[in-house]
Amino acid sequence: MLSGVLNGQFNGVRIGRRELLTGAAAALACGVPRLSFAGAAAGGQQAPGIYRYKIGNIELTACYDGVWNRPIDDKFVRNAYFPDVQKAMAEAFLPIHALPTPFTPLAINTGKKLILIDTGSGGQIAPTAGSLVANLAAAGIEAKAVDTILISNFHPDHINGIKTKDDELVFPNAEILVPAPEWAFWMDDGKMSRAKEPVKSWFLNARRIFENIAKDVRRFQPGKEVAPGIISVPAYGHTPGHTAFIVADGDQSLFVLCDTTNHPALFVRHPEWQAVIDQDGPLAVETRRRILDRTSADKMPVQGYHFPFPACGHIAKYGNGYEFVPAMWQATL
Amino acid sequence: MLSGVLNGQFNGVRIGRRELLTGAAAALACGVPRLSFAGAAAGGQQAPGIYRYKIGNIELTACYDGVWNRPIDDKFVRNAYFPDVQKAMAEAFLPIHALPTPFTPLAINTGKKLILIDTGSGGQIAPTAGSLVANLAAAGIEAKAVDTILISNFHPDHINGIKTKDDELVFPNAEILVPAPEWAFWMDDGKMSRAKEPVKSWFLNARRIFENIAKDVRRFQPGKEVAPGIISVPAYGHTPGHTAFIVADGDQSLFVLCDTTNHPALFVRHPEWQAVIDQDGPLAVETRRRILDRTSADKMPVQGYHFPFPACGHIAKYGNGYEFVPAMWQATL
Repeated sequence: MLSGVLNGQFNGVRIGRRELLTGAAAALACGVPRLSFAGAAAGGQQAPGIYRYKIGNIELTACYDGVWNRPIDDKFVRNAYFPDVQKAMAEAFLPIHALPTPFTPLAINTGKKLILIDTGSGGQIAPTAGSLVANLAAAGIEAKAVDTILISNFHPDHINGIKTKDDELVFPNAEILVPAPEWAFWMDDGKMSRAKEPVKSWFLNARRIFENIAKDVRRFQPGKEVAPGIISVPAYGHTPGHTAFIVADGDQSLFVLCDTTNHPALFVRHPEWQAVIDQDGPLAVETRRRILDRTSADKMPVQGYHFPFPACGHIAKYGNGYEFVPAMWQATL
Repeated sequence: MLSGVLNGQFNGVRIGRRELLTGAAAALACGVPRLSFAGAAAGGQQAPGIYRYKIGNIELTACYDGVWNRPIDDKFVRNAYFPDVQKAMAEAFLPIHALPTPFTPLAINTGKKLILIDTGSGGQIAPTAGSLVANLAAAGIEAKAVDTILISNFHPDHINGIKTKDDELVFPNAEILVPAPEWAFWMDDGKMSRAKEPVKSWFLNARRIFENIAKDVRRFQPGKEVAPGIISVPAYGHTPGHTAFIVADGDQSLFVLCDTTNHPALFVRHPEWQAVIDQDGPLAVETRRRILDRTSADKMPVQGYHFPFPACGHIAKYGNGYEFVPAMWQATL
């Protein structure tokens, strides 16, 4: 392998780095990370989308899968006046006709197990997303090294990364754990038959992903420890079984919000707003307020799924709502 | 060289990446980037401290040099009640006895010239800083490729990276441009003789850096174009000749604030606060208000020197002051 060469000493050598998006596309096409290398972050290339930090002795790696620039109209927030939604976007210096919605799965190395919370888009949602495997590789994490996948909800941007378009497992050695109420909902034929778009397509997509691996998917009841140091937290509303997680070690803990809120510029600032993707709007709002209240009161660090990368920081009270305060980037963990 | 190997295709190979801090220390010790490689961002390693974006066709690379965790007491802000200062730090989820003060020089590739604004600590200020050369290298920029260095002010964290501790030039092919009023102040023997600490030590340090290269240092009058697409802006107060810059191409422009404000949690939120390092406090406040007012009114993107990495975003009005809204991280430029 290359390690012998790469561990050597060099003077003034321009060193290659992954072409992330190209690598990701290749990886997803064949189910194995196949990566190309070019002169180090040459002009036009971004740094890899990875950010590391620690909670006690547990090492977290936020891994960027990409972004979906979701077109926004007056239907996106059910209970807000559209100009107010656009005002909130403008105040965050975001475009007002498309909401940049990043996907950032979280890899957790407990020292004994390598766990991944959510799996990104699998390159099957937007051309600007699908770099999870390449970014994991840039973080030194091979897809086959992942022991456990924890799923927060069955919307496509969380489960599609489990498989390639060609139905191959991207993380072949990982046990997949899903919230039992989430499984019960999406596998209910009666509920599927009554569903309208886009929920109907999400039913079909969930079955595409899970049907032929169902016997290997472990269902857990939210509220219990799902891995050493990781506790699942019922956070229903966004989906019927949406689940968040707490990562704890020593006297430190992190709240992994998953989809408790979508983009913070809208739904942390205005927790009472119901996104059209919140399947039970009023329950999603109740859950959101409860979790934002707790994490702000406890000054507990949070990791969001649709927050601006690296998507970690704190929640602070702000007017009638809250604000997301990004963590200061650190060169050392 | 390695490029032939690195441009190849590999399956599932763990690829090396610079050990940034080690590499930086080595680079600064010998004046040439000497870097070691280990298995890709293995456990315990952060991603490189580089962030790329564009203004028109000009490519910007924010390059992290490191952070100084500056101990803070009631003298740090001259005209504020210390508990209010600590409250502002706590509200930003910062420690309240030491202010994490990052250094982030900006590399600018105009397509014809490679320009660096400020040079970091040269590893001569804090053990947690000195990674500029390694981060530039991770961005594919060799120190010897830098054509021009623009200096905003002569405080040590901006000029020390010009030389190693052993008096060797870190950027051997770069022409160094400095603001004429800054040069005039720090090279004035009378002013030096009357200076008290810490300003006295800054005089001595400026002479250590510039004395034997004085004939090669070009002085410019702030207010004019200093390189194609880069206009210097007088921003006096922090130091007598402190200068900011505007980078412009096509219909886009960026305000490079340099030290117009120190950490935004204190001095963007409270522009009237005078840091002890603002040599002319009232003038620094006047300059700060003028520039924050302009950049917020024009919704003009900004790059700060002591802002949380990657230190780019926007200024928004907030109460009687302003707030810094970080840019959303982008995988593509």
